[in-house]
Amino acid sequence: MEKQYVVGIDIGGQTSKLGVMDARGDVLAQTIIRTDTFGSDADAYVAALAEAVKTCINQAGKTPEAIRGIGVGVPNGNYYTGEVAFAPNLAWAADKSVFLAKMLSEAVGGMPVSLTNDANAAAVGEMTYGAARGMKNFIMITLGTGVGSGIVVDGKVLYGHDGFAGELGHTSVMRQNGRLCGCGKTGCLEAYCSAIGIARTAREWLEASGQPTPLREIENITSKDIYDAAKQGDNFSLRLFDYTGTLLGRSFADFIAFSAPEAIVLFGGLARAKEFLYEPMLKAMNDNVLKIWKGKVKIVFSQLKESDAAILGASALAWEL
Amino acid sequence: MEKQYVVGIDIGGQTSKLGVMDARGDVLAQTIIRTDTFGSDADAYVAALAEAVKTCINQAGKTPEAIRGIGVGVPNGNYYTGEVAFAPNLAWAADKSVFLAKMLSEAVGGMPVSLTNDANAAAVGEMTYGAARGMKNFIMITLGTGVGSGIVVDGKVLYGHDGFAGELGHTSVMRQNGRLCGCGKTGCLEAYCSAIGIARTAREWLEASGQPTPLREIENITSKDIYDAAKQGDNFSLRLFDYTGTLLGRSFADFIAFSAPEAIVLFGGLARAKEFLYEPMLKAMNDNVLKIWKGKVKIVFSQLKESDAAILGASALAWEL
Repeated sequence: MEKQYVVGIDIGGQTSKLGVMDARGDVLAQTIIRTDTFGSDADAYVAALAEAVKTCINQAGKTPEAIRGIGVGVPNGNYYTGEVAFAPNLAWAADKSVFLAKMLSEAVGGMPVSLTNDANAAAVGEMTYGAARGMKNFIMITLGTGVGSGIVVDGKVLYGHDGFAGELGHTSVMRQNGRLCGCGKTGCLEAYCSAIGIARTAREWLEASGQPTPLREIENITSKDIYDAAKQGDNFSLRLFDYTGTLLGRSFADFIAFSAPEAIVLFGGLARAKEFLYEPMLKAMNDNVLKIWKGKVKIVFSQLKESDAAILGASALAWEL
Repeated sequence: MEKQYVVGIDIGGQTSKLGVMDARGDVLAQTIIRTDTFGSDADAYVAALAEAVKTCINQAGKTPEAIRGIGVGVPNGNYYTGEVAFAPNLAWAADKSVFLAKMLSEAVGGMPVSLTNDANAAAVGEMTYGAARGMKNFIMITLGTGVGSGIVVDGKVLYGHDGFAGELGHTSVMRQNGRLCGCGKTGCLEAYCSAIGIARTAREWLEASGQPTPLREIENITSKDIYDAAKQGDNFSLRLFDYTGTLLGRSFADFIAFSAPEAIVLFGGLARAKEFLYEPMLKAMNDNVLKIWKGKVKIVFSQLKESDAAILGASALAWEL
């Protein structure tokens, strides 16, 4: 009998989402486990993940024999080696390399496991099922807690010499006096244009100016608070999105000079603020590209449900096994 | 009879170099014509180039029937379309698109012509015959009058959606108050780290400081003057290279986050100042990459004679015809 199903896993800082899928991307069963309750104990996390995989296959009414393999999207995941290396948001891989693909495969009785970083997985998902269908050259930018990226060239994810290509969240937007990023460097795109980044900008601006804004009443400002305030017409919050969009657009201009994509595809929590980010982003991008690209590169937003894109993308990896 | 030879053409702002080569890269005949004496008349330039091709084949003792095709490396050249588009340093293509591959092919009696930008051609040359032999993932940076780039991913030049990928000379090194670049944008790498860029830095610094330096005696400072002064131990000139190398290294760090190359390969006139650029470049690069890449990516210098690399690279294109 042909192996007709795959498991897709999206590992995030807080939760890990799993799904069993058929070749059309239809989800037969789905489950979620915590990622952040295992401290630095990678073995314990992998054991829990393996259990969840088995349960999920069971819930789908299938046997392990019907499963072709497991695809995993995970921050700082390496496609070539199957390792997760120095991932600041994963306590069990924050200061070391964890060979997750091998460990998980062994824990589920030898089922093959393919792994890549979460943004690459999302790019594959978007190319197979979403906004990038039919595109051969695009750059996926995930605007979540951090900023991730997956670069697709001629229909294939760019992995580079060592498998770690596509870390555009850690390119520079501020060469001087840049903010400290979670990675240890300063001035990274992620330190400004992630959900956490825009909240940091808000706090800096609140201290520096006396402009009235409902954000002053909030103790721990999140990007969601800023979005809600902008929705109410709060000028301070609208300026925050304008600034963040402008920084993103400038960075996109540099990315275009690299791989000349057909489109930049945006995904993740902060990308939901499309209505406030799109115009400044597009303007800054077109203001900073060479003449040959002005007005030519699209900025599009993911068409997949966030929870689905990464699992679907991860599952697409498994079909290649 | 098999077609055993190819013609390689390297088109620069001032001169165009041609060679007839065999499969090992041995040059049977070589010639040079001016590029800059035709004003905006692209037809006149192509006619002269076609004549030179015929003469060169003749000088090699071959007939057109023995020639497989012609490969061309040219600034702003597009591999997909065979056009040269808005090339600031080529008067006959400065403000328009010239379909050079088609025009040249017709002018030489239908011989097939393949064309790409000069830095891509140099990258192919370096991969086939030079410092990048055996490498599948590297970035070629040409430090000449301008700054060009050729990006190799999995052994192939990255062309992108439209064929114009790899314009890293026009990524930003200075987000605020950046210098005007020849391309019309501000703050481009090329405006600081080309032969012209370092000379501009020298003039700016001379105006701003009273530091003694032999450069003060020179009317039109060139990068060669700065190199010569640095060789004599001139502190001002050494600082110029230090600054330029630092800017380059910071940019390299961003490029690495994109395609995770095995090496950055440097080529062109300014790259001859290796002894002064290498240390600051390497330090700035390693200071600005993610932990996973620290100390891992090499900076290597071209091993080919400058005049040869581009012709050899262009000729390699022709073998694919």
